Amino acid sequence: MKKEEAYINDLVEFLSIPSISTDASYKNDVRRGAEWLAEDLKNSGLENVEILETGGHPVVYGDWLHKPDKPVFLVYGHYDVQPAEPLDLWESSPFEPEIRDDKVYARGATDDKGQLMIHVKAVASLMEKHGELPVNVKFCFEGEEEIASPNLVPFVKQHKEKLSCDAVLVSDTPLMDKETPAIVTGLRGALAFEMTLTTASVDLHSGAYGGAVPNAVHHLVRVLDSFHDENAKVAVEGFYEGVPEATEELRSEMGRIPFSAETMKQEGGLSDLYGEEGFTPPEQTGIRPTLEINGVTGGYQGAGMKTIVPKEASAKISCRLVGDQNPGKVFERIERHVENHLPRGGAVRLDKTIEARAVTMDADNEFIQKAARAYDDFYGNRTLFPKEGGSIPIIEVFKNELGAQPVLMGFGLQSENMHAPNEHFHLENFRRGIRTVEKYLESF
Amino acid sequence: MKKEEAYINDLVEFLSIPSISTDASYKNDVRRGAEWLAEDLKNSGLENVEILETGGHPVVYGDWLHKPDKPVFLVYGHYDVQPAEPLDLWESSPFEPEIRDDKVYARGATDDKGQLMIHVKAVASLMEKHGELPVNVKFCFEGEEEIASPNLVPFVKQHKEKLSCDAVLVSDTPLMDKETPAIVTGLRGALAFEMTLTTASVDLHSGAYGGAVPNAVHHLVRVLDSFHDENAKVAVEGFYEGVPEATEELRSEMGRIPFSAETMKQEGGLSDLYGEEGFTPPEQTGIRPTLEINGVTGGYQGAGMKTIVPKEASAKISCRLVGDQNPGKVFERIERHVENHLPRGGAVRLDKTIEARAVTMDADNEFIQKAARAYDDFYGNRTLFPKEGGSIPIIEVFKNELGAQPVLMGFGLQSENMHAPNEHFHLENFRRGIRTVEKYLESF
Repeated sequence: MKKEEAYINDLVEFLSIPSISTDASYKNDVRRGAEWLAEDLKNSGLENVEILETGGHPVVYGDWLHKPDKPVFLVYGHYDVQPAEPLDLWESSPFEPEIRDDKVYARGATDDKGQLMIHVKAVASLMEKHGELPVNVKFCFEGEEEIASPNLVPFVKQHKEKLSCDAVLVSDTPLMDKETPAIVTGLRGALAFEMTLTTASVDLHSGAYGGAVPNAVHHLVRVLDSFHDENAKVAVEGFYEGVPEATEELRSEMGRIPFSAETMKQEGGLSDLYGEEGFTPPEQTGIRPTLEINGVTGGYQGAGMKTIVPKEASAKISCRLVGDQNPGKVFERIERHVENHLPRGGAVRLDKTIEARAVTMDADNEFIQKAARAYDDFYGNRTLFPKEGGSIPIIEVFKNELGAQPVLMGFGLQSENMHAPNEHFHLENFRRGIRTVEKYLESF
Repeated sequence: MKKEEAYINDLVEFLSIPSISTDASYKNDVRRGAEWLAEDLKNSGLENVEILETGGHPVVYGDWLHKPDKPVFLVYGHYDVQPAEPLDLWESSPFEPEIRDDKVYARGATDDKGQLMIHVKAVASLMEKHGELPVNVKFCFEGEEEIASPNLVPFVKQHKEKLSCDAVLVSDTPLMDKETPAIVTGLRGALAFEMTLTTASVDLHSGAYGGAVPNAVHHLVRVLDSFHDENAKVAVEGFYEGVPEATEELRSEMGRIPFSAETMKQEGGLSDLYGEEGFTPPEQTGIRPTLEINGVTGGYQGAGMKTIVPKEASAKISCRLVGDQNPGKVFERIERHVENHLPRGGAVRLDKTIEARAVTMDADNEFIQKAARAYDDFYGNRTLFPKEGGSIPIIEVFKNELGAQPVLMGFGLQSENMHAPNEHFHLENFRRGIRTVEKYLESF
């Protein structure tokens, strides 16, 4: 089909822009991404398209509001992407998209450029067919999701009227599997921070000083190891405050979500799973909070050996939060824990970078139910309503500030390497996604 | 004094060559260091000067053997240096030597280029004054000490006759303090290895997978933390096998070595000391073995955050060994310990890089006693005979293979930042060192 090929060409063009939000050296590329997207919204028939400034990377906005009796949908997505490192593990260059076996390989393919383009192209397709849309739509695409949307909360509060809507439509989550659609009804909150541990003003010779002076890596390792007990439970006192009890009802609900340990192992190349004792993997990633070390660095890391006692070491850490866990309180508990577990001779600094509460949605809501039915023509199985392990911090803000119903329609797949080398997106789901969204909007 | 100024100029030239042995990209610079040194030996009056190939960086040799009735001294030193990182902490460029306040600042200034040049220049000075030397000398300078002399052992065994001697003269250790000479009579052995821990074939999204899959950094941190107990004792079973008992006699000998915790803290910018409970800092660095993490790396380390579950993490580790500790056996014990402490879902690889036994020398030996007396004219205090925390693996080989008496005359200072930024060497000790060595050789 000619039209779909053109849509795919547009996606490939979009994916070739390295809009990496976390790294300041890509600032111009992020803006280039916004400009490209604004142009594409115009070409799709959207009106009032503009690039709105924030304290950081800009927001791309556009709307079509000519059906006063119909609901207003706000489509949210993010055009920024994760860093592409480690580059040597990519089979093709992360910003030179390659289509292999009906999948497009590029950083951002599934997270989130490929998925947000489904909505842009569904609107383009409807406009082409009918010259109008069946409902009202507003598009709001940010460039800072991968750095936890530091400017989107004030932006949403400032533009409440402009963004006002009945439902927020988001595609930044996965399908359950290739033939099973999924609408996420729970998202974990997030807390992220960097921890820097210092023991000396200079690296010391391990022969002359080793054994008598504190080693920053030893001290860091001691603190980091103290975060989890033998059963992979977080050992920070008070960490689990606000975590909902795993009732029989909740657990049987979690049990209905199809899950295969073998598939999970294959996806990650794992020899074994590993998680909090007493909970199943879907529970561990869906209804339980985590504390994860995302990176660690300290001392000599070059070629060969350097026999030093390192003066400094640091770690990047992020928590996924559930239920009523308060990110600010959790951070305070962690600060206290670190103080209590820091061996003598060490000084520690914690810098908070991300903070967001968890959010849950009611699967019986009309906007969610209609979305579930829209999938039916294009996917073999019925839609499921899982709790997701990831965090989309802004969803809670849309829900509470705009009073809108979030609808998280996934079109990605868990196996598509998001945040990892060789990220890709199944074009089959790109095509089916466009048709699903068209049908969904037509159902109102 | 004109002559001494010329010697200092030569040293500055020598220090400007970045002969970093551990990093293959400096291979030509290491050779340039060897060539420069060979030329300087010739200019100093040495004969049979040659650059001898090994499996790695070359050895520089030269001799003067015209006193058949006198002892033969083999002067050993190393012209290779440690890497200069972190470069931003240097006040002047590491390979553009700068003299400030009668100290020369450069990588290798005290370890070991400045100290080995004392011997070259002492010979040059004697030759200039007398046209001959009072004893026989052989010079053997290697280019691989900082990477644990992997080729020097076979080299020494292969050139036993060429290197045969009565005493091995080495200056690669510190003075006790500015006015107190020191001849080291004990050196710790060494064992170094790299540990790589893998949990997955790809970094995983911490939202989707976090909590249910093994995290390579968590697993590494657990293993690393298990190496030491609460009292900073190495917790590897059997690690202390072969460590001499800390008898009252040994401890009172250690107690005679002047030590100031305040000075040690100042040297390293430490808020506190930290070491194995029940031992003093001189004991911890002198007669006790250590296990030190020199560097750790894993997961995302760039700017900002990347919410991944890292697939791989690694650490560089080195042990200092004492007494009869067998490096091979210690390594086996560590391998077993790692296996026993590795959480499920992790795979680990250990690569041994350095292996050397500890060595001790008898302070009553004539070669050592005469060296102690040679210092007397130039330093305020009497010579001490400490056990050193560092390792010079080749000393044991010289002692056992050549049957030679090692004499470790120090001219550096502990505070001269060896292996750290702003390494320097007190030119006062360069000048006094040359006179001390002249007097020493003349005393035979």
